[in-house]
Order: sequence, then C-alpha cells, then structure tokens
Amino acid sequence: MAGLVRTGIARADAAVIDGLAHAGVATVHEAQGRIGLLASRLRPIYPGARIAGSAVTISAPPGDNWMIHVAIEQLGDGDILVLAPTSPCDDGYFGDLLATSAMARGCRGLVIDAGVRDVRDLTQMGFPVWSKAIFAQGTIKGTLGSVNVPIVCADALIEPGDVIVADDDGVCVVRRADAPDILAKAQAREAAEEGKRQRLAAGELGLDIYDMRGSLAALGLRYE
Amino acid sequence: MAGLVRTGIARADAAVIDGLAHAGVATVHEAQGRIGLLASRLRPIYPGARIAGSAVTISAPPGDNWMIHVAIEQLGDGDILVLAPTSPCDDGYFGDLLATSAMARGCRGLVIDAGVRDVRDLTQMGFPVWSKAIFAQGTIKGTLGSVNVPIVCADALIEPGDVIVADDDGVCVVRRADAPDILAKAQAREAAEEGKRQRLAAGELGLDIYDMRGSLAALGLRYE
Amino acid sequence: MAGLVRTGIARADAAVIDGLAHAGVATVHEAQGRIGLLASRLRPIYPGARIAGSAVTISAPPGDNWMIHVAIEQLGDGDILVLAPTSPCDDGYFGDLLATSAMARGCRGLVIDAGVRDVRDLTQMGFPVWSKAIFAQGTIKGTLGSVNVPIVCADALIEPGDVIVADDDGVCVVRRADAPDILAKAQAREAAEEGKRQRLAAGELGLDIYDMRGSLAALGLRYE
Amino acid sequence: MAGLVRTGIARADAAVIDGLAHAGVATVHEAQGRIGLLASRLRPIYPGARIAGSAVTISAPPGDNWMIHVAIEQLGDGDILVLAPTSPCDDGYFGDLLATSAMARGCRGLVIDAGVRDVRDLTQMGFPVWSKAIFAQGTIKGTLGSVNVPIVCADALIEPGDVIVADDDGVCVVRRADAPDILAKAQAREAAEEGKRQRLAAGELGLDIYDMRGSLAALGLRYE
Amino acid sequence: MAGLVRTGIARADAAVIDGLAHAGVATVHEAQGRIGLLASRLRPIYPGARIAGSAVTISAPPGDNWMIHVAIEQLGDGDILVLAPTSPCDDGYFGDLLATSAMARGCRGLVIDAGVRDVRDLTQMGFPVWSKAIFAQGTIKGTLGSVNVPIVCADALIEPGDVIVADDDGVCVVRRADAPDILAKAQAREAAEEGKRQRLAAGELGLDIYDMRGSLAALGLRYE
Amino acid sequence: MAGLVRTGIARADAAVIDGLAHAGVATVHEAQGRIGLLASRLRPIYPGARIAGSAVTISAPPGDNWMIHVAIEQLGDGDILVLAPTSPCDDGYFGDLLATSAMARGCRGLVIDAGVRDVRDLTQMGFPVWSKAIFAQGTIKGTLGSVNVPIVCADALIEPGDVIVADDDGVCVVRRADAPDILAKAQAREAAEEGKRQRLAAGELGLDIYDMRGSLAALGLRYE
Repeated sequence: MAGLVRTGIARADAAVIDGLAHAGVATVHEAQGRIGLLASRLRPIYPGARIAGSAVTISAPPGDNWMIHVAIEQLGDGDILVLAPTSPCDDGYFGDLLATSAMARGCRGLVIDAGVRDVRDLTQMGFPVWSKAIFAQGTIKGTLGSVNVPIVCADALIEPGDVIVADDDGVCVVRRADAPDILAKAQAREAAEEGKRQRLAAGELGLDIYDMRGSLAALGLRYE
Repeated sequence: MAGLVRTGIARADAAVIDGLAHAGVATVHEAQGRIGLLASRLRPIYPGARIAGSAVTISAPPGDNWMIHVAIEQLGDGDILVLAPTSPCDDGYFGDLLATSAMARGCRGLVIDAGVRDVRDLTQMGFPVWSKAIFAQGTIKGTLGSVNVPIVCADALIEPGDVIVADDDGVCVVRRADAPDILAKAQAREAAEEGKRQRLAAGELGLDIYDMRGSLAALGLRYE
Repeated sequence: MAGLVRTGIARADAAVIDGLAHAGVATVHEAQGRIGLLASRLRPIYPGARIAGSAVTISAPPGDNWMIHVAIEQLGDGDILVLAPTSPCDDGYFGDLLATSAMARGCRGLVIDAGVRDVRDLTQMGFPVWSKAIFAQGTIKGTLGSVNVPIVCADALIEPGDVIVADDDGVCVVRRADAPDILAKAQAREAAEEGKRQRLAAGELGLDIYDMRGSLAALGLRYE
Repeated sequence: MAGLVRTGIARADAAVIDGLAHAGVATVHEAQGRIGLLASRLRPIYPGARIAGSAVTISAPPGDNWMIHVAIEQLGDGDILVLAPTSPCDDGYFGDLLATSAMARGCRGLVIDAGVRDVRDLTQMGFPVWSKAIFAQGTIKGTLGSVNVPIVCADALIEPGDVIVADDDGVCVVRRADAPDILAKAQAREAAEEGKRQRLAAGELGLDIYDMRGSLAALGLRYE
Repeated sequence: MAGLVRTGIARADAAVIDGLAHAGVATVHEAQGRIGLLASRLRPIYPGARIAGSAVTISAPPGDNWMIHVAIEQLGDGDILVLAPTSPCDDGYFGDLLATSAMARGCRGLVIDAGVRDVRDLTQMGFPVWSKAIFAQGTIKGTLGSVNVPIVCADALIEPGDVIVADDDGVCVVRRADAPDILAKAQAREAAEEGKRQRLAAGELGLDIYDMRGSLAALGLRYE
Repeated sequence: MAGLVRTGIARADAAVIDGLAHAGVATVHEAQGRIGLLASRLRPIYPGARIAGSAVTISAPPGDNWMIHVAIEQLGDGDILVLAPTSPCDDGYFGDLLATSAMARGCRGLVIDAGVRDVRDLTQMGFPVWSKAIFAQGTIKGTLGSVNVPIVCADALIEPGDVIVADDDGVCVVRRADAPDILAKAQAREAAEEGKRQRLAAGELGLDIYDMRGSLAALGLRYE
C-alpha cells in the first residue's frame, strides 16, 4: 500500500489559513466543537511560534526519512509537513538540511509524531517543529512510504490539504472544506471573549458574568 | 461529598510567605526535613518565575473546570490556585480568561495536576502556571467539585491556606502553622550556605569543608 | 564492588575535544556510524549550550550524592561529570553549591541520568546540565559508589576519559582513542554539507542532488 | 458534531470474519502489508482470547460512558465494541453490567483506548477486553458522543463495520471491503509458514531456507 | 519529622471489613461517591486476589526498607501493609522473607507505591501485593521513616486504621469511621444491581431500564 | 561498526549456569553486590519461567530482525538470545517461527529491549521471552547489525557468553568469569535464608533476629 505520491492536492484559501493562525489552537479547537487536537505529546522545539498551513502528509517507515525528500517536492508556499511513522519511533527524521530545503519551497513548519534533531539550528533559522522527541538518532533511506495520503498523526486523522494550526498549546487540524466556517466561528469567539476579558480584568466574577450561581445552587453547592 | 466551598480560610503571614518565596523550593524543602514536594511531573510553563502564596484548593471532576470560577471568588491577594482532578486528566482546565480574572483578584499563579492552555498569552501576562500537561483540550461545566477542602495534588496533601512555594525546581507545600518556623530554618540554611559557596568558589573541596575523608575511608573507599 | 576511585585518568587532546564540541551531537553521532547516543530522556536544563569534555564518571547509589564530592576532586580543566545511579532515581543529586565547586575545578557541565535542582541558579551561572528530571528532592550521604569506573548512563557505556559531546539535541559519547578519527570524519561531513546547504537553499531538490529518483522508481514509487 | 448514531451499518461476511480470527493479529497484519495495528498500549485483561468481529464504534467524551448504552442497541451478533475517548482518559468506562448487556446482544468483546473495571467478573464471564488501563474510577452520563462514526482509536482509523481482530498480540483493523482479500492472503501465509516451521523445527537454519547468506555477505557481514 | 511509630491504632470492625472485601473495589468506590481510589499504576502481582484489611502505614525513604521490619511488629490479624516512599522509587522493598514474617502476624497483603520482588514465591505463598513495579533491585537499611502516620500513597491519603480494599481493579481506601456506612451503601448497590443484571442478561436494554431515551433526545441525539 | 559476527564464544560451566537459574534473579543480584539488573521495563510474556543461560548477543537496527537469523546459527545448547536495538523500538522482532528455530538449536529463551509477537504460540511452546513490549508490528530484513559483540541492553552491559538469569522478577547478568564465585555466594545466601525463614514463619520478628532495635533507637526512633 506504501509507495504512492499524490500530486496537486487542493488547499484552503490563504486568507482563511492566516486567519486561523491568528486565532490559535485553543480558539480554533473550541470553534469546531472541541475536535481535531493532536495528542499533547507533540511539543514545539522553541516557544512563541504560531502558524497555520496546508498539510502535506507523509507516511514513513520507522527510522527511514526518505519520503521527506519526496514530500518536499510537493510543497507549495504556505504548506506544513506532517509526518506519521508506521510504527512508533523517536528517531531524528529531520534536521537543518531538510529544513533549508523545505524553507526554500515555502514551507512554514513541521509536525512530526517522532523525533527531530539540529534543534539549535532550526531555532536560529526560525523553522518551527512540533515533535514528540528531540533525538539525534539518524535514519536510513531504504524503504518506500507515501506522500499526501490520509494519515493518523498523534491520534488525529489528517487528510492532505487539511489546515494545520500550531502554537505553544499544541497542534489542531481543520478539514479543508470546513476551514472558512471554522474561521468565522473562531472570530466570533474572539470578539465575544474580548468583552468578557475587560469585565474580568475589572474584577467582575465569571460566576456573575456567566450567570452560574443559580445552576450551581440547584446542583447543591453549599458554602461554609 | 463534592459540592462544598469553605470561605474565609486562614492564611499565613504575608512577610513569612514572601520570605519563603525568596528562599525557593529546594531550600524550603530541605529546611522542613525533605518533605512536602509535589511530584516532578509538574513543570512551569515558562522559566524564571519564583512565587509563594496561600493555597486556595480545588477538587475538580475530570474534564470539568466549573469549580475554578467558584474558587476565584474565594481568592485573596497573594493566593495561589491549586487544582487536583478526581481522576487523572490532561485537559486544559485554565486559559487566559480565567487568568485575567484570577489576576484581578490578586492571584499569583496556578498549580494544577492536569493541563493548561493559552500558554503564550499566560506567558505574556506573566501569570505563572505549574502543570503536568499543556493541552488545548477544552473542558465542560457540568458537575460540582469542592473548593478549599484538603486535596492530594501530585502526591502531596494540600490543606487550604497552606503555603505553596513554586519555582523552576517544582512546587513545595508548607503547612500554614509551620511556615514561620520553616522560614527561620530556611534563612539559617541560606546564611550557612553563603560561606560555603565562597570557599567552594575559591577551589576548596567539599571533601575538606565538610570533613568527609575520614568517614569515606572508614567505609572502605579506596583510590587507585 | 563499589568504593573505588580511579585517579589520573587519560584524556583526549584538548583541541580534538573542542573540535567535537563545534561539530555538535548530530554530526558527531553520524560521523561515528550512528552509535554512542545517550537516551533522549536526557534534556538540557536551558537551551543553547554546546559543550564537549572528558568524562569523569560517577556510579552512585539511588538518592545518595556523596560520590559527587569525591568526583569533584578528580576533575581536571575541561572535564564533564557523568553520573549514573545504580537503580532508577529522579532525586535532585546536584545543585548550585556543587556547581560552584565543580566550576572552580574547570568543569564544563554535568550529564546525569537522574534529577537536578537549583536550575534557576545553574542557568544564571551558565553551568549546563543534561538530566532526566528536574526535582528538588534532596539526597543523603551514606553509602559508597565509585568514581572513574565504566558506567552505563542512559543506555550508553561510558568509560572514564571518553569524550562527551552535548547540545540541544542530547548527549553523545566518543571513545577516547577514537576521538581524533571521529573529529576528522565530522569535519569532512560539515564541509560536504555546506555545499549541499547552499544548493538546497537555492531551491534545488534533495531528490536531484542525491540522485534518488531512479532508486525510488525502481522500488515502485508511483505518482498520481 | 457529536450526537449522531448511524444504524444499520454494513458488515463483512461472517465466515470471512471467523477466518481472520483464526489467523490472528500478527498474520493478518502481515497479510495486509503491515498496516492497521492499534497502539501496543492496548492490552488484553486476560490471556488467551482470540476474536474477530465487526466494529460498532463509539466516540465518547472523557469520563462519560453514556454512549455505550446507546451503542449496545446497535450491536448485532458477532460485533465488537470499539471506543475512543475524545480526550485521553483512563477512567473505567465499562464493567460487568454493561458486559452482561453486550453479551446478551451477541457482542464478542470490547476494544477501548481508556480504562475498564470489574475485570475479575469479566474474566469469569469470558468477555474479553483490550484496554489501556484497568481502573475502577467511575464515569458519568451527561454529554452526548456518537455511535458508528469513524474514530481514531489508539492511533488507528476505524470505520463502523470494519473487521477488528484481537488476540494476545494486540488489536488490528481490516477495512470491511478488504476483508475477503486479506483473509486469502493470511491463509496463504499460514500455509507457507507451515512448511517452514517443520524445516526450522528439524534444525535447518533460516539463513539457508530463506537463502540469506549471499545478500548478507554482499552487505559486508564478516565472521571472526 | 521521620522516626515515629504509632502503636495501638484503632481498626474498623472485622465483619465490616470482610463485607467490604466481598463488595470489591469498584462497588466500594461507587458507594462512597467515587472517591478513595489509588492511582491505576498499582497492579496486582497475580490475578484473582480480593482482600480488605486495616492499613498499617509506612513512610519509607527511597531505596530503604528498614521500616517494614518495624511495621511488621505493629501488625494485627487482618491488617494490610501500605507503603509510600518519600521520593519516587521502583526498588524491590519486599520479598518472600518479609512476606513470611508478615503472614505469621496475620497480614493479608501489601500495597506499595514502589517495587516488589520474589513474586514467584509470593504467588505460591498466596500473599497478594499491589505495586507499581516488579524489580529485583535491593534496598538498604540505613535511614528512619515512620509507621502508622498519615501517608499519601499513589495519589490517595491513607490514615492508619483506614480500610483498604484491593482486587483486580486496583486499590481503594475507606476512612475507618465511614466503613459501616459505606458497607451499607455498597450492599444496597449490589442488591440493586442484581435485578438489573438479570434484565440485561435477558436482552433488555439499559436505554429502557434506566429510561434514558428522553434525556438523550432532549440533548439532541439523532439517528440516521 | 556493524556487520560483525563473533563465533565460538566462551561459555560458563553448565552446572554453574543451572545453579544460578535455581537461585533466581533476586538472590543472584544480591550475591553479586546488587549490580547487573536489567531495567524493570523488561517483563516476562507469561509467569513462572525461571531460566539461566549463556548470552548470544544481538545488536540490531530499529525495526530490522535480520540479525536474529544470523544469531541463531551461533546458538549452542543452553544459550539465551539477548537483543538490543540501536535506537529505541517496540516492533515485534520475534515470533513463533524464530522460536521454533531457536528451540531446535537448544535456545532457552529471549531477552529483548524491544517488542515480541505470537505470544500465545510462544506460551504454548514454553519458550519464555522477557521484552519491553508485546506488539505485532512487523520488521524488515535490510540492514546489518552485529552478533556476539558487547551490547547495552535495558541499562546493563552484556558481553557474549555472560550468564543471563531471568525469572518473574526480571533479568540479571553475571560476568562469565564471575559466575562460579557468584553461585557460591548465592547458595550461601539461600542456606542462610532458610533458617531465618523458619524463625520468621514461627512469628519471631526481624527486629529481633537481625538485632535492629538498638540501632533504630540510636537513630532516634520513638514509639507513641
């Protein structure tokens, strides 16, 4: 089943993608009904990055990074590489040379349910990675995988062209077709939150703003 | 048994609390006889924070952050929220809106044996959190927990009003009544350490400063 | 079998050691045929340090840091302390006083398959540590271990005097006798990579630079 | 998006399912090209069970087992319940009463990326479960999930009606439409293995049976 | 603070304790409002044991089992040893000699948030243990701990004399004073479950027995 | 460095090996001064096996079991295969066909810091395995490793021909040259323990048998 590269994948609208990046992972996740999060074992290699882009997916054998070279040819401007190994692996699939190549093709970052290395260089280059391990262990180039097929990465199903949003809170996937709708909902949430933030900052309580006292009392909350 | 909020808890003296913050976790832990540490799975979301405060405790159902709103009303200036879920959970119970509200009430930080989100915002706000996970997964508001009851958080028993000390080394709890005594012991340790630090920095060996050579030899240490 | 201190260990040439530090963990690991990495559970307490030095090894009982004092006397300029507990342990064996003493003896850092504490102070002092935990839990001084004996630390065999290379990617060990040869190979890799980096940065593909298309096609890679 | 129950799902042929059970997880996994395994964290609650059945899938909120009752109504004879929580959870979603109900509907077992309880009773009833935890922690019935929607369970995508194969080696999923083809390949493997087993039992070496000596030598294997 | 042995602790009524053993962990946990479970990392060394007894608690230094000898003198007939190390530890604190001694004093089992060894012998002797590790690593006898003081064991607070219930589902603690009331509630649950079990075994659905269809529909559950 | 097979390794005396098997892991570990244990993550696939044998070591690439075929040719009667992957891996390197072949060569079992599969068959065949995972994930045969070179397996250094002892408590290694001496010490321990076991079984306390009361009192143990 391995050995397939899908070319010319469809992508979401660039403005929609950038809007989702601005909203960030937590808001996007809420906006789409609390689905789409990747497992929390994926952590950024440095703090502060917040990106969104179209997924170019990679299904790779354990300890074999050959398909990353194949995937880089499929990158378009604004894409994000998303790699899932076919069995659990912490090896360092990706380093500064591959990042140099990916950045030259317009790639915004990497999400990988495995390891990464050269993280000091990647940090200096400003190429963000969300990985489950940092490990210098090298990989080989011996076996085929696939590019731009559906993958399960860190507990989430990712289709090529889906929108990936990643920041310090982790990684979230939005189906390509749903992206405009989710952006609208995310922006509505942001607008609604702004007013509440000001009231909370002024010392008003969530108990009052959200009118929770009655329902808490009805459930039996008692004060001593 | 859930559904109880204790109000008007007693707190330690503010100067004592600030003294413990200055001493830091490792020194306070030593000063009280090597007890009171929370499990090392609790890590700060950003480096450099060093705080102490009075515990406002929260026992919360898994995946349900309703009680945090209830707890915020109980916060006094200089308090720290301490949350333990009633079953293990990585969900993101707390984010920037709750932090805005807690800060407005004088809260110094959060210790949570579960997940947190919006960590980029929390970092920018300077609101420190020690958590076992960073995870954008949302929570619901459906079931009662309790506030200001004794809880077991990350292997440590915490009573409301206990002093929580937290820094890059982790989190330590000091019983409220013991706080003045522990502060005195911590300050004595700091004073004693200062002289040793200067001797060690000058190249003198701990083997000599602490007079260890005899007892090592007596146990049979041999040099080749 | 514990209770032995070997003195006067042999060390690699200082210029070779510094060359290996410059090459970094990932390159050194590749240069010696993908062996010698310590397990990825060892992580630096702060980002950005890149060091190499001669291993002064410590085999220590769980929760007992007495042998670190003994080892510090054996430190020469440019050495690195490497500690493995004889059973798994997260306790904080090492803090700012020991670091003060080790730095006074010329020590460049610590690699420990256990815990460390006072990490804020260690960061300010610029004393790098790679550890499996940050934990304020104190240790005792009651039982003998050994210094400068072969140890297994985080899955790797370390002989006293071996060269330790450590950076943000983790930790790698190079046998003392192999160090000049590995340095030559590492520098050859760096030179070879520089040309490729420029071609990749210009947008050329690894598929072409490394001439991979034929072998991929031969294995059956197909494009849709 | 939660709150959907699909009824009347299609299932694979019963004889094909039983054939896959007989082949077992390792053989089926090999037969379909080494895909479809669920993560190894799912372990059987007792040894020796080997089953296959059609997946009735459940997407459930963390700590909420209400949807299991809904799913039991959808069970047909020979089905297997497969539950994935929407955020990681170890709570005990399932015990002897639910097993009694499921068995009465013809259910052959449960695969759950969460916890289970009453395992002594389940063992005595002969109701096999593959779970990531055994934990008595109770759940609530407060929030909707979905039944017979696609889920990601322990790293694998499961569609309702897919064939689940489970034994002491773990759990594997076969797409419903592929089941007859995979069965044929699995049986071919079993037949081929039988002859090899006899030769190996007689002391013949795999090096000779599989004619490996030439390729090993070509890669440089050397004997001392 | 270490170095204290409390003698002559109060215990619950023997018949109440035996009733709780019969009810088992899951039922007792439910009966007391879903509190009191120890963390699921504690697992039995062999299947099938179901016991209850009065806790004789041990707070022990990491890697030091001296206090177990002290605790054995405090054992009464029907007691259970419960050990928590003061920092996390997997060492094998307990083996067949200690079990021989404990059984001679009427001890029913051991609950330990650390390691155990000689498990083949313990199994043959029928001495059940719930532990977080099986590890032959030996311990020393060098430092004081305490016996019959309150401890936090695997996330739960245990007071000496509390009733410990343990079976294949894990371990649960019941406060000594609450034991008669919890037993009554547990027995009521068992009685109520028996009728439901028969209806479920006959094929009736939980959806109907518990009258759930209306509330599910009200929340928006839809069938396709 | 990979690609080497050492033939004709030296082995310990068969009677010594069998004596060590009878003593078991915990006793052997104590007899040699509490060294030589492999990490507790290695667990037996079924309970009750207790073996010892000479190590035939395998250093294997991640996810590649080719070298097991090479190693089987090097097996002598009474040997144990010991495999360490060169980077962490849970894949199922070994199943019933390889076990059939190994048993035909006199092999007593497998110790592997990776995964194993076909565990139901292996159990029925009585071929014991200590592994860190049970996982049906298949491996490839594409890259060289080495056989009968020193390896680090689960934190322990193993030389070819070392004696491996394995039972329900885990796995321990004894250097070949030390085996007779360690056996003598182990048997002395067993003899000494037998008398103590009888006294403990009769109700005598370890506090008295080992004469601990004085030293405990001297350290300050107090009874209330």
